[in-house]
Amino acid sequence: MQYSLDRSIDILMRTPATLRALLHDIGSEWARATEGPSTFSAFDVVGHLIDGEETDWIPRARIILSRGPNLRFGPYDRFRHWSRNSNRTLESLLTEFAELRQSSLTQLRAWNLTDAELNLPGEHPRLGPVTLRQLLAAWVVHDLGHIAQAARVMAKQYKSEVGPWVPFLPVLTDHEVPRS
Amino acid sequence: MQYSLDRSIDILMRTPATLRALLHDIGSEWARATEGPSTFSAFDVVGHLIDGEETDWIPRARIILSRGPNLRFGPYDRFRHWSRNSNRTLESLLTEFAELRQSSLTQLRAWNLTDAELNLPGEHPRLGPVTLRQLLAAWVVHDLGHIAQAARVMAKQYKSEVGPWVPFLPVLTDHEVPRS
Repeated sequence: MQYSLDRSIDILMRTPATLRALLHDIGSEWARATEGPSTFSAFDVVGHLIDGEETDWIPRARIILSRGPNLRFGPYDRFRHWSRNSNRTLESLLTEFAELRQSSLTQLRAWNLTDAELNLPGEHPRLGPVTLRQLLAAWVVHDLGHIAQAARVMAKQYKSEVGPWVPFLPVLTDHEVPRS
Repeated sequence: MQYSLDRSIDILMRTPATLRALLHDIGSEWARATEGPSTFSAFDVVGHLIDGEETDWIPRARIILSRGPNLRFGPYDRFRHWSRNSNRTLESLLTEFAELRQSSLTQLRAWNLTDAELNLPGEHPRLGPVTLRQLLAAWVVHDLGHIAQAARVMAKQYKSEVGPWVPFLPVLTDHEVPRS
């Protein structure tokens, strides 16, 4: 599928409500469980998406749109949320993420990006040259990937409870070794 | 995590709203896209979950709870929904799934299952002996696995649009060969 700003916003605007439906008021045995050391719980997923709003997607788009001499992005700290949110509740993170996302999308819409602007270059600190279009497409994929991760991590908490069903439930054996 | 009926119902009751948040009114380019031949789109996922309500989870629990001479489950046709829903809209499937799930959970709660009942046996046509507890745990994992699948399948539609980001977005390279 070719990138389209409207189709992308249609995904990005849903993510807070999708995570709220999956997670609001859920017990900590589901919310805080992980796939192993240094992997994310559902709680961590919401925190990581908040980090994306504050430090990644829109800030990087601004760097590209500035058309300045230095188009290199700052690094994306994948573990910023661990210290940032150590005293937070999941409910408060879900609310904060929804507010930040709404504000990000207000900015994205206000730019009224043209095709020429979507082709503008940036420089990823590890991946090298990228375009604004690729950054905005990655934002959509990143959201969906982390929704899938939250559901997968929760599913795995019952791996020992399903008995002989494991081979018929592939989500239980996805990402046995953490990836990225 | 050990199986708990309350914790399980807390997941099962969320799935219709989670899928509605992710999918209601979404364009067919997202809803109908797949990972390749004989794989499920997000539309198919909702149809498959409906099949589960009508032919799998509660019907199999009834077989176990009947304590009859034949505890063997009927097969679960993973592709029943393809013919059943060929003329349906996604909106109507989301509504139907929510109604069926509500009715399934009303039945499940009404049984007031004891620990002894959760240990009752059934016979899976391919996996052999199972317990009611394992069946009900598999139901929860099955829901979460298909939520993860819907998000993953949608994410993959932008695989060619993210440029160099592919290695940082593992959801794009999950299940390159369909599993189960």
